[in-house]
Amino acid sequence: MTEQQGQAPAEMTTAQMATAQMATAPMTSAETSVIRALAAQLRVDAIRCSTEAGSGHPTSSLSAADLMAVLLERHLHYDWDHPALPNNDHLIFSKGHASPLLYSMYRAVGVVDEAELISTYRQFGSRLQGHPTPVLPWVDVATGSLGQGLPDAVGIGLAGRYLDRLPYRTWVLCGDSELAEGSMWEALDKAAYYKLGNLTAIVDVNRLGQDGPTELQWDMDRYARRVEAFGAYPLIIDGHDPAAIDDALAQVRSHPDQPTVILAKTIKGKGVPEVEDKDGWHGKALPKDMAEHAVEALGGPGSLRITTALPDPGTPAITPNPQAVISLPTWEPGEKVATRAAFGAAVSALAARPEIVVLDGEVGNSTHAGEFRDAAPDRYFEMFIAEQQLIASAVGLSVRGYVPFAASFAAFLVSRPYDFIRMAGVSQASIRLVGTHAGVEIGQDGPSQMALEDIAAMRAIHTSTVVYPADAASTARLVATMADTTGISYLRATRGAYPVIYGPDEEFPLGGCKVHRAGPDDAVALIGAGVTLHECLTAAGELAEAGINARVIDLYSLKPIDAETLRLTCLETGGRIVIAEDHYPEGGIGSAVLEALAGPYTPELHAVLLAVKSLPGSGTPQELLDAAGISARHIAAAARSLVDGNQPGGNDV
Amino acid sequence: MTEQQGQAPAEMTTAQMATAQMATAPMTSAETSVIRALAAQLRVDAIRCSTEAGSGHPTSSLSAADLMAVLLERHLHYDWDHPALPNNDHLIFSKGHASPLLYSMYRAVGVVDEAELISTYRQFGSRLQGHPTPVLPWVDVATGSLGQGLPDAVGIGLAGRYLDRLPYRTWVLCGDSELAEGSMWEALDKAAYYKLGNLTAIVDVNRLGQDGPTELQWDMDRYARRVEAFGAYPLIIDGHDPAAIDDALAQVRSHPDQPTVILAKTIKGKGVPEVEDKDGWHGKALPKDMAEHAVEALGGPGSLRITTALPDPGTPAITPNPQAVISLPTWEPGEKVATRAAFGAAVSALAARPEIVVLDGEVGNSTHAGEFRDAAPDRYFEMFIAEQQLIASAVGLSVRGYVPFAASFAAFLVSRPYDFIRMAGVSQASIRLVGTHAGVEIGQDGPSQMALEDIAAMRAIHTSTVVYPADAASTARLVATMADTTGISYLRATRGAYPVIYGPDEEFPLGGCKVHRAGPDDAVALIGAGVTLHECLTAAGELAEAGINARVIDLYSLKPIDAETLRLTCLETGGRIVIAEDHYPEGGIGSAVLEALAGPYTPELHAVLLAVKSLPGSGTPQELLDAAGISARHIAAAARSLVDGNQPGGNDV
Repeated sequence: MTEQQGQAPAEMTTAQMATAQMATAPMTSAETSVIRALAAQLRVDAIRCSTEAGSGHPTSSLSAADLMAVLLERHLHYDWDHPALPNNDHLIFSKGHASPLLYSMYRAVGVVDEAELISTYRQFGSRLQGHPTPVLPWVDVATGSLGQGLPDAVGIGLAGRYLDRLPYRTWVLCGDSELAEGSMWEALDKAAYYKLGNLTAIVDVNRLGQDGPTELQWDMDRYARRVEAFGAYPLIIDGHDPAAIDDALAQVRSHPDQPTVILAKTIKGKGVPEVEDKDGWHGKALPKDMAEHAVEALGGPGSLRITTALPDPGTPAITPNPQAVISLPTWEPGEKVATRAAFGAAVSALAARPEIVVLDGEVGNSTHAGEFRDAAPDRYFEMFIAEQQLIASAVGLSVRGYVPFAASFAAFLVSRPYDFIRMAGVSQASIRLVGTHAGVEIGQDGPSQMALEDIAAMRAIHTSTVVYPADAASTARLVATMADTTGISYLRATRGAYPVIYGPDEEFPLGGCKVHRAGPDDAVALIGAGVTLHECLTAAGELAEAGINARVIDLYSLKPIDAETLRLTCLETGGRIVIAEDHYPEGGIGSAVLEALAGPYTPELHAVLLAVKSLPGSGTPQELLDAAGISARHIAAAARSLVDGNQPGGNDV
Repeated sequence: MTEQQGQAPAEMTTAQMATAQMATAPMTSAETSVIRALAAQLRVDAIRCSTEAGSGHPTSSLSAADLMAVLLERHLHYDWDHPALPNNDHLIFSKGHASPLLYSMYRAVGVVDEAELISTYRQFGSRLQGHPTPVLPWVDVATGSLGQGLPDAVGIGLAGRYLDRLPYRTWVLCGDSELAEGSMWEALDKAAYYKLGNLTAIVDVNRLGQDGPTELQWDMDRYARRVEAFGAYPLIIDGHDPAAIDDALAQVRSHPDQPTVILAKTIKGKGVPEVEDKDGWHGKALPKDMAEHAVEALGGPGSLRITTALPDPGTPAITPNPQAVISLPTWEPGEKVATRAAFGAAVSALAARPEIVVLDGEVGNSTHAGEFRDAAPDRYFEMFIAEQQLIASAVGLSVRGYVPFAASFAAFLVSRPYDFIRMAGVSQASIRLVGTHAGVEIGQDGPSQMALEDIAAMRAIHTSTVVYPADAASTARLVATMADTTGISYLRATRGAYPVIYGPDEEFPLGGCKVHRAGPDDAVALIGAGVTLHECLTAAGELAEAGINARVIDLYSLKPIDAETLRLTCLETGGRIVIAEDHYPEGGIGSAVLEALAGPYTPELHAVLLAVKSLPGSGTPQELLDAAGISARHIAAAARSLVDGNQPGGNDV
């Protein structure tokens, strides 16, 4: 989204946003009593379930019980029977280890019963896992890797303000330890830049981390200065005072264009004097006797049932249209086009689908993601150079049903936010990643800019799809396919322009491959993807001149992979294969092929795996491909050595 | 390092630090003229070399030329002929794309000649790469992935203040775009916490990023508030005024216990009016005619040769002693010990070597790294929950010759700072990483805490060594080996306690493996590492009872790998192998074995690869190992199916 769009959106005035879903008047003493009873019940339940499990984080739950009691009873707007309701608020536990508290809240609103809470928490097969995941319908994103819940919430906030244009709010319970993660500051920075008044972080400043005091302990002013400097509105409160909490939670509505950070000074273990503010109690269930005593002192097990305020009715301003007619760009075979350019053109064509959103990390002019900005400026979000927030925003947008594409240089897109991609897999989120400028092929910029481990990293992500097209036509088709692919899909794109190979009607199903130059007398198969496919085709031409029939496989789909065709190929070429990849040797294309071939029966193989085996420097793309030993002449030489039976030693061809 | 050590170190008073290597008196007008001439020469050379190369970032160099001219001429203490001198200052270009400026500085001090600069920049084989790497003796760390130079410098600052106890300073040229990276704030936070008055960041606030204006543009006050809130001392200056620059660079010495951030307002492209403050000129060489005109307007090519002030003599307070006698801990075979506990004991024993340093991300009580804190409190640095800074600190410490071990949960240690590990590989740094709590074996905490992709990710890192010991004895030996291993070494450790298998005299060379139960009639090989090795041993016992001889391989060294033994094993077992790993199927142990077996001739294989194929939840370790299909009974069943020839379909056993 461009800077001008950092304004109040057209269809919802800031005044409307401020008054929407307003909380009720100040608390009466009766209401305060309810809060106190609720907080006690949450504490009791958090203790009971973790002690029963024999593990978990009760003390981290106790510190935040009052905060969550007030939020649940008086500020959260949520229809628990209809978690998919578009105008429901969002509640995210960025400190996911406080799951005993979260699940106790679910019990208090009646969606989890006492038996499930107490007897299944952390048990095998239970949906009440050690840290929350979206196997629970009220959990938006998996947390537990600290410093991710707030960044994810920024994506939800972007959706609420700019796309859905609905007044739902996102409330995020954060730990104080996780404020040491840089990602939290990327999140606040972007939340402020995009004026996300719909986002409230509630920081449970309980002073103690897992291994001793936190860095800033109870220095509330230092926290407030940081928050303010990053553009959010800070409020310091006593996190155990219901009236103060209520007042703070109400105040957030007075800042419609600014995220609020409530810095709540709390006591870890609050409510159980033996462990209050004591080091050494992080992540430990209370022993049974201590738990029984504590539960009794807190008033015993409760049965309070809370009715949460319902959200106002409302429908998102954007209605997805996955059936919209898309005119994908086309090119003439032979035309030289960079696959990154094809991505830009294809994703811009997809702008006809209103649910498609594009984000970039301040390199949209290189990735070509920036072309979407022209096609659909309201659905382009600039994340600047903050790749962790780039992924987190995509995850948050996916929570709201959008179809986000996030782009940057592959080296930065995959490796900088790798933990966010990992957690997106745990969240079962559907996000699309496009990493451009992969491999030594980028040339002069040198190794810091070269993704050479991204295929290994992305293949190992749960729910991932990994594609690496060699030309513009396949890229465009695969970009369109990604839009309809669940899970984490990753497209690796090349910097330089290479000839278009395929016609516009060719299809590129996931799990498929394209076989070139196949014949009955093929002596060897050359397997490549992306830039090395072109090198394989050139090598096959050279080999043909020397009388060697070489089949070429365009392995554009690395995960899922076309194991059947690969096996058949091995049978038909006497097991002679050369694989060339612009990637380090471990875990890349060669590995993907070997994994696919492995099984109860794999025939004898004669394989040469060509990959980037030493640290590249600068140079022209062709010089670097050649120096890495993955250019056509190396491929042809490897093939000849296999065919001649003049087999080189080991894999070090 | 504990909190108390956040004080001035014993052997160097803050007053000594403040006055050490003091700059000269305010500039005379003659000196100002030299600065102006030097700045012009740096600009001219930056333009010339990038135009000659046809690529590069001249405008990002021009904005910082005045800053660097003053630093080089008046504040940097450096013996260019002896870059390894212990008391040399450090100069890091966190904005590595300004390499034309850096290399022009090298020319100005006489270590790179004009011909090399102008005609080899960005050429194949040149040490003057697109972004700086330590192939140059004056470059400490590779940069080019933004947001890493400053974090790395924090590690150097820690070494200077707490270990070397020398007054050298680290000067870091930062871009303004990279302040959007959370890692920059992790760095400032830690620099302030550890009172690194020896660290100065110079931010070239030139307002323009790669793709349009930066987020804060020239809002210098906003930057200053952020810097101040994070504990550093901010100074706002005109980055083109030599006197102001000189004054600021001198002032940093007045803050011996606080890092300084000089926020220099600059103009991108300064000195070439056609491109000054113009969007669209990032990362573009000036066309030849424009370059010629600009060079002429700047006074033409210069031949100024600068003499940098030399550092005071000084030797580090710590002298490495790699020959120190180490008494590694020992255990009785059969004793149940967690490998993470063995790591803690072993690394504490290594404390006898004064160059060993340990860092942790606020989980030292779980990783057992915290035990080193008791053994050598001065050499333990708490990085809190900031894994990017954890790795960067290790990299910086390695620059100063220390032998750092960085520990955290494997899920966070590998994936959160993956880009920092990648760049450490490009930097050819030597750091040791210990990731504990790997795999589903951790049990109740659930998938957010389970490293299941770390082996794939770490194997793909340039210069990496990956080990995964199954017991305490092998862990202790491998920890000791890591201390003497160059490159990025990674040890994967397990949460739970398992029986010690090996005696204290057993050796575990990198690239080796241990073969158990080998005999002439082995029908199948079971390959495991870490927790699955125990499952393989159990399975082999069960198989033996059923009359099937199964050989077991403890593949503790995954990279390098014992390809020879693996090949021999396949030949001796008729190619029947079962591999079990507590990791996702892609890129892990199975892949490592297949890669090792691949080559000019691989015999027929009958392999079953058991890995974690769906998203785990919570449960006991044994429940989760079993649910993932990697427990002894699954291994035994797979082996039986291979031996019986009753081969299951595909790999989906």
